Amino acid sequence: MGEPAGIGGELTLKAFKRRKDLGLSPFFVIDDPQRLAQLAQKLDLSVSFAAIDDPHDSLSLFETALPVFPFPLAAPVIPGTPNPRNAPAVLKSIEIAVELVQRGQAAAVVTNPIHKQVLNEAGFKHPGHTEYLADLAGIKTPPVMMLACDELRVVPVTIHVSLADAAKLLTTDGIVERARITAQALVRYFGIEKPRLAVAGLNPHAGEGGQMGREDMEIVAPAVEALKAEGINAFGPLPADTMFHQEARATYDAAICMYHDQALIPIKTLAFDKGVNVTLGLPFIRTSPDHGTAFNLAGTGTAKETSLVAAMKMAAQMATNQ
Amino acid sequence: MGEPAGIGGELTLKAFKRRKDLGLSPFFVIDDPQRLAQLAQKLDLSVSFAAIDDPHDSLSLFETALPVFPFPLAAPVIPGTPNPRNAPAVLKSIEIAVELVQRGQAAAVVTNPIHKQVLNEAGFKHPGHTEYLADLAGIKTPPVMMLACDELRVVPVTIHVSLADAAKLLTTDGIVERARITAQALVRYFGIEKPRLAVAGLNPHAGEGGQMGREDMEIVAPAVEALKAEGINAFGPLPADTMFHQEARATYDAAICMYHDQALIPIKTLAFDKGVNVTLGLPFIRTSPDHGTAFNLAGTGTAKETSLVAAMKMAAQMATNQ
Repeated sequence: MGEPAGIGGELTLKAFKRRKDLGLSPFFVIDDPQRLAQLAQKLDLSVSFAAIDDPHDSLSLFETALPVFPFPLAAPVIPGTPNPRNAPAVLKSIEIAVELVQRGQAAAVVTNPIHKQVLNEAGFKHPGHTEYLADLAGIKTPPVMMLACDELRVVPVTIHVSLADAAKLLTTDGIVERARITAQALVRYFGIEKPRLAVAGLNPHAGEGGQMGREDMEIVAPAVEALKAEGINAFGPLPADTMFHQEARATYDAAICMYHDQALIPIKTLAFDKGVNVTLGLPFIRTSPDHGTAFNLAGTGTAKETSLVAAMKMAAQMATNQ
Repeated sequence: MGEPAGIGGELTLKAFKRRKDLGLSPFFVIDDPQRLAQLAQKLDLSVSFAAIDDPHDSLSLFETALPVFPFPLAAPVIPGTPNPRNAPAVLKSIEIAVELVQRGQAAAVVTNPIHKQVLNEAGFKHPGHTEYLADLAGIKTPPVMMLACDELRVVPVTIHVSLADAAKLLTTDGIVERARITAQALVRYFGIEKPRLAVAGLNPHAGEGGQMGREDMEIVAPAVEALKAEGINAFGPLPADTMFHQEARATYDAAICMYHDQALIPIKTLAFDKGVNVTLGLPFIRTSPDHGTAFNLAGTGTAKETSLVAAMKMAAQMATNQ
């Protein structure tokens, strides 16, 4: 479901309507059937719904109706205006998804965007969606965020911190841990037998022998050596500016990046609408579209389903590879 | 000329050979005619040369021969191995170029890459090529580096410093000064009447209201306000990751970036071989290819002239617009 006041419901309906053209694998949505029907009517999207108890029924129903695993919302949905009264249902839909995927009743979880602030108001204590999933799954090692599109996969080692803090918080262990989880996931879910990891330098020109910062010599290079010692095909630190053109991208399967924008600038430049957020290191497959709740677009019918569709397709492909 | 042991000579010969197909404006090269003839022979590039005293003769000669404003080298050139004995000639060729363009005998200067280290050994005291040009031109305000291709123009505010230092060295005045010079140059040389400048935030999500660093609120935002107060159409700070996809690029004429890789990652991702380095704030037009001397390729005949050609074309277009 995600945040019901955001664009998630609309995207789900649009993806379902295009399921045949796009060759989408059967999915079901954990949501309030009544609010979805109202939304479909409001947006003039003719969709049939079928309430299900057993996710397996989705397989036969998907041809003709959107299967809905029903979970009622407490309050009516006003597009663009999140309501804390609906926060428990938002959280519950995530819990149900995790429960079903862990019981083998679903092959993967695809999450629509949530709005952290309204969940916090309702008592949500986790820094974000991913941390909540990790907690539900009982995972100790923090999961790893990968952004992926057809052209590129990137993994930021530091994420939502200031640029100054990114430089301070970078550690050899942090790089190694995230690169290792990435390599394992590329084998398991992406069908890559011997993944090649390109490790970006932190500084311009990867520090140019210490002339522009010593972190690349003292933190990044030792991480690359440690990964190699584990038998992982990692190389770097590389100058980040020359890592992302077509010819360079052909030399690796994922780029391990040192900070948020180093990872997100190239992928959003190449594939703004089609990037997928993949969470690695969970005991199940989880993808999500690479955008937020977009309250400004909610209810207008103009939101693009491309990233959610890409997330669904990637989840299905990962499940097949696994 | 640039560093004669690098790929500059080869690129110049290749560009000249393709001058008709590419529609290149007439150019002449300040170089040692003998070494160019030897290089052409070695690389099996049949090129006729014509020594000139007066740059204007280039116009009539360019159809049939590469005009060379002769300046002899002190030592034979060994590709890939720079010789300090040739450093004075490298510097002198730059001086001559500046002198000719300032006397109106050339419309623009296009520089081939130099190798700073060998020049330093010969007593060169400037941090780089651009600073030497600024000194020759008697400029006090540091020139501004712009990288440009068909799809994008970017200006980094801080350049060759570590990421940690980039965050520390960023100032409101520094942003305003570089953005102002950029706006002036876009009017004068790029035929843009009212340039639109997109100013990137330093931190992820442009700091998200101070949650990921305060620099965007305290340093970048005031710079945008100061620029607006001067009548410059600047906006930001913008989240850098969503600034460089096609739809976003259509909203501005240049992106003012806070650090090296924030500017260079997107442009090299979009146009690796065709980026041009444009120096703004000099009293003449200067462009250069966006690569170095590439000693590893020198003498092999495999270097690509695309960036030098793009630099020549951009210089010619800038001269026309001016």
